[in-house]
Amino acid sequence: MHRERFFTLAASCPDRTGIIARVTGFIAEHRGWVLESSFHSDEGPEPGSGHGSRYFMRIEVKADALPFMLGEFRERFAPIARELEMDWKITDSAVKKRVVILVSKQEHCLYDLLARWQSKELDIEIPCVISNHDSLKGFVEWHGIPFHHVPVTSDNKARANAEIQRLFEESRGDTMVLARYMQILAPELCAAHPRRILNIHHSFLPSFVGAKPYHQAYQRGVKLIGATCHYVTAELDQGPIVEQDVIRIDHSDSPEDMVRYGKDIEKTVLARGLRYHLEDRVLVHGHKTVVFR
Amino acid sequence: MHRERFFTLAASCPDRTGIIARVTGFIAEHRGWVLESSFHSDEGPEPGSGHGSRYFMRIEVKADALPFMLGEFRERFAPIARELEMDWKITDSAVKKRVVILVSKQEHCLYDLLARWQSKELDIEIPCVISNHDSLKGFVEWHGIPFHHVPVTSDNKARANAEIQRLFEESRGDTMVLARYMQILAPELCAAHPRRILNIHHSFLPSFVGAKPYHQAYQRGVKLIGATCHYVTAELDQGPIVEQDVIRIDHSDSPEDMVRYGKDIEKTVLARGLRYHLEDRVLVHGHKTVVFR
Amino acid sequence: MHRERFFTLAASCPDRTGIIARVTGFIAEHRGWVLESSFHSDEGPEPGSGHGSRYFMRIEVKADALPFMLGEFRERFAPIARELEMDWKITDSAVKKRVVILVSKQEHCLYDLLARWQSKELDIEIPCVISNHDSLKGFVEWHGIPFHHVPVTSDNKARANAEIQRLFEESRGDTMVLARYMQILAPELCAAHPRRILNIHHSFLPSFVGAKPYHQAYQRGVKLIGATCHYVTAELDQGPIVEQDVIRIDHSDSPEDMVRYGKDIEKTVLARGLRYHLEDRVLVHGHKTVVFR
Amino acid sequence: MHRERFFTLAASCPDRTGIIARVTGFIAEHRGWVLESSFHSDEGPEPGSGHGSRYFMRIEVKADALPFMLGEFRERFAPIARELEMDWKITDSAVKKRVVILVSKQEHCLYDLLARWQSKELDIEIPCVISNHDSLKGFVEWHGIPFHHVPVTSDNKARANAEIQRLFEESRGDTMVLARYMQILAPELCAAHPRRILNIHHSFLPSFVGAKPYHQAYQRGVKLIGATCHYVTAELDQGPIVEQDVIRIDHSDSPEDMVRYGKDIEKTVLARGLRYHLEDRVLVHGHKTVVFR
Repeated sequence: MHRERFFTLAASCPDRTGIIARVTGFIAEHRGWVLESSFHSDEGPEPGSGHGSRYFMRIEVKADALPFMLGEFRERFAPIARELEMDWKITDSAVKKRVVILVSKQEHCLYDLLARWQSKELDIEIPCVISNHDSLKGFVEWHGIPFHHVPVTSDNKARANAEIQRLFEESRGDTMVLARYMQILAPELCAAHPRRILNIHHSFLPSFVGAKPYHQAYQRGVKLIGATCHYVTAELDQGPIVEQDVIRIDHSDSPEDMVRYGKDIEKTVLARGLRYHLEDRVLVHGHKTVVFR
Repeated sequence: MHRERFFTLAASCPDRTGIIARVTGFIAEHRGWVLESSFHSDEGPEPGSGHGSRYFMRIEVKADALPFMLGEFRERFAPIARELEMDWKITDSAVKKRVVILVSKQEHCLYDLLARWQSKELDIEIPCVISNHDSLKGFVEWHGIPFHHVPVTSDNKARANAEIQRLFEESRGDTMVLARYMQILAPELCAAHPRRILNIHHSFLPSFVGAKPYHQAYQRGVKLIGATCHYVTAELDQGPIVEQDVIRIDHSDSPEDMVRYGKDIEKTVLARGLRYHLEDRVLVHGHKTVVFR
Repeated sequence: MHRERFFTLAASCPDRTGIIARVTGFIAEHRGWVLESSFHSDEGPEPGSGHGSRYFMRIEVKADALPFMLGEFRERFAPIARELEMDWKITDSAVKKRVVILVSKQEHCLYDLLARWQSKELDIEIPCVISNHDSLKGFVEWHGIPFHHVPVTSDNKARANAEIQRLFEESRGDTMVLARYMQILAPELCAAHPRRILNIHHSFLPSFVGAKPYHQAYQRGVKLIGATCHYVTAELDQGPIVEQDVIRIDHSDSPEDMVRYGKDIEKTVLARGLRYHLEDRVLVHGHKTVVFR
Repeated sequence: MHRERFFTLAASCPDRTGIIARVTGFIAEHRGWVLESSFHSDEGPEPGSGHGSRYFMRIEVKADALPFMLGEFRERFAPIARELEMDWKITDSAVKKRVVILVSKQEHCLYDLLARWQSKELDIEIPCVISNHDSLKGFVEWHGIPFHHVPVTSDNKARANAEIQRLFEESRGDTMVLARYMQILAPELCAAHPRRILNIHHSFLPSFVGAKPYHQAYQRGVKLIGATCHYVTAELDQGPIVEQDVIRIDHSDSPEDMVRYGKDIEKTVLARGLRYHLEDRVLVHGHKTVVFR
């Protein structure tokens, strides 16, 4: 983590010789000072299948070491990106990301995120919080953040999802965080913002998909329970996994105890996954992620 | 862990008032000194279902504090056990458990178990090691332990399983340990020795049952992999879980790296599960375990 | 964790035969239903020294199974306690503990505790929050909790400590929690409330005592950092340890990164330690603790 | 981990612009295929002190992608290294490292290392094992590895150390591993092979330096114990830390239990630290390490 302003280039391209040299050569040519850099050649889900591997990279360059700003960087870098057939983006640490939070009634993830935002550990804008209940309205508004109550019933799902999408887009949100939001997002909403919607699932996926994972874990008698932060896709609980963690339990723990322990894992895993995402550390390869920590 | 000789009572019975008082009252009456004791009321897989809970206990009593030995203890305690409708057993720390180990070609769990046996950390008898390969014969025999090569082919499965059962029973084995034994035991063999056969499975069950769990984990892109020690039942990978653990991996780890990391978890989880089992710390309730650590 | 009302007996006494039988016999005699029970014989810091061991226990009894309430329990149990030379107390789950929280400027532990209090995970009264700064006043008061600003300067330490003690006693506090309170409490205040003041220390004690533990950890190049919840005594950072945990770091983490990671450990360890304390799971033996989880 | 032959360049130099471009440019120029690469700018123990930071890197290049072998690589790269004022080395995955193991009576680390060597997980040569006792002679020799008994008494320390040094050098050892070797190496021996001697210390350093760390941990009442793999220097227990880990204990664990738990941590931490070292993943900066996992 650096205090100075920097640009973050996150990119992937087909693997070949000379990629690092080409990209860092461009930076060096303009006297760019590299703060942090990560590279990874990923074979995808079938290593050795001959499908070819893909190259991933993330580079932080000190902003004031370069003779130009982001606009010109983009323009000058574009030919290299084209040549390497790159998927790429570059962001500026001085521009705060805009994160819209969705919650239901459980408050542990929301308190945790707002505490990190208050202390500037999460240096983001929160244009609004959206909930299908209004119980957390006062708490959110006390922090000076607009709160939108969008009730969801069996009848109004399409309309509610459209309203969420409208609010997200009107807020110019970069990222949507489902902070224990207990409704399933419509496939259209998921498809409209791929790799921008993060969910925290209260199980160590792929175990115990679906409802009441802690009760499933209790019934199977596992000795550890966990939580998973993943990108939301139209397929429920199947999106690319960003972060996971577990905690030890034993025979004396009831499903209620597991729920309580689980909350501590959920909020920590969500906060870690969100930070990786916001710092452009997460790159997606098919249904898997590369996470440059 | 105590150096002095002690008796271990492990028991369960329907829950009611006064169980601890009844059992510890009997011990106190005979001036028995309790070294360690654990109690647990278990609601089973459906808490609050009204099926009633079951009471589990494990008590270590100093042997020389009692005025009688195990035979008389059993005789005197039997009426109380009957009255409480108990499932119970009592063992003597001076009598070493007899553990038969089954292996295939992978040596990491075998080396680990024999190191613990050499140092007396595992204070057991190993009457023999059985394998479907003969590659570890020399290593086992160097330790002065008989080695039986029981090849398994698609044709001789029934005969091989019968031979394993014969060797186990002839060895007067208390426990059979599948230390990365890569064959499936016949249902008859499993049924003949319930709660006496321990397996180490190279995945964090119930995720990734079946073949090549590390490859499955790689394809799903999970961020932690694990291993599970469980009792073997006729249903593959479904027996009661005794112990589990996990280790963190990331996008840079190939399936081969995961196999390597996994071995460290496998051997530690197997050794822990085996120790709990041998010290009569594992009691089974349906398809779950109570583990008094 | 049980939803029904129950009494918790937490006690210790010199070790001898028949303790469990004596205590659980008393409970059984009155048809008491034991929900959870733990026993431990502790040898103290010098095992095998011949100083004799001490016996610790914690028993939860269903309230409505007994024919009397707490007052009569105490009266009837007193002779047994005297006979066994017991240190004991019994509490009622229906009576909420009163917890006074002290903070400075860092908000992560406070947010975390108030989220747990809001959701009733921590089912306590918080009569007030005390701080040497006033930056968290609004947040605390929004929750309907009185906030006292007690500034501490080099000149007024004695007066400030007296004021804290007055506020704690006036609030009829059971427990004082230093939730990253950055002032040292006066020895008199510590001595006045032994085993009632919990602190969260931002290091894996006994490593890195004193100021700036994360910077010390950075300089030594350790690969894990941690946090410690302990009872406050007049000796700084030396009180009995209640709970600890660690998190992995590496060479790329600056001291500032460690501070950020550390916060997640601090709040979780404090919350766990506090819960153990409030549920009377922590018994102290000299400068060590027995924690019946 | 790659099956193909590759060269590993591990280097550090004063930080400046263009380092990655210069080094990877050289590789790309010769059509070198980079398998894995890591870079890190390290500020040393006093970040922000103005002492300047140092740049660390590790690059794996596919051997058969280059038009020349190691000798010519060295020659051609030397001018760049000089220009960048680099400390550097390059190794060939086809040349096995030679590891001399020192042990005393405890066998857990030795069994663990030999199991890894047998399975080729550790693809090394073990020219010999040296011990101050002869109890493990048979076990080592069964593996076809020469065993040298070098007794150490209060009188012969200098001679014994000279003999160890002679055996190490005669064996053309790259690395010396103290696998729970219970003697202190002479400062001359440490100084003769800096960053080549790895020790496993049975405590989570810097806590509990000196003798009997598990007993110290027991007396302090910590809730986690650990182990540390570090380079040996003339200052006892002060060398650069390569790897650490911990395990949870509780009040019921005696010092003997901790010794038993500790062994599992010791052997795993030693094996991990050794692997990082052998794969040239560990670079030293002052008394700290950069570990490119």
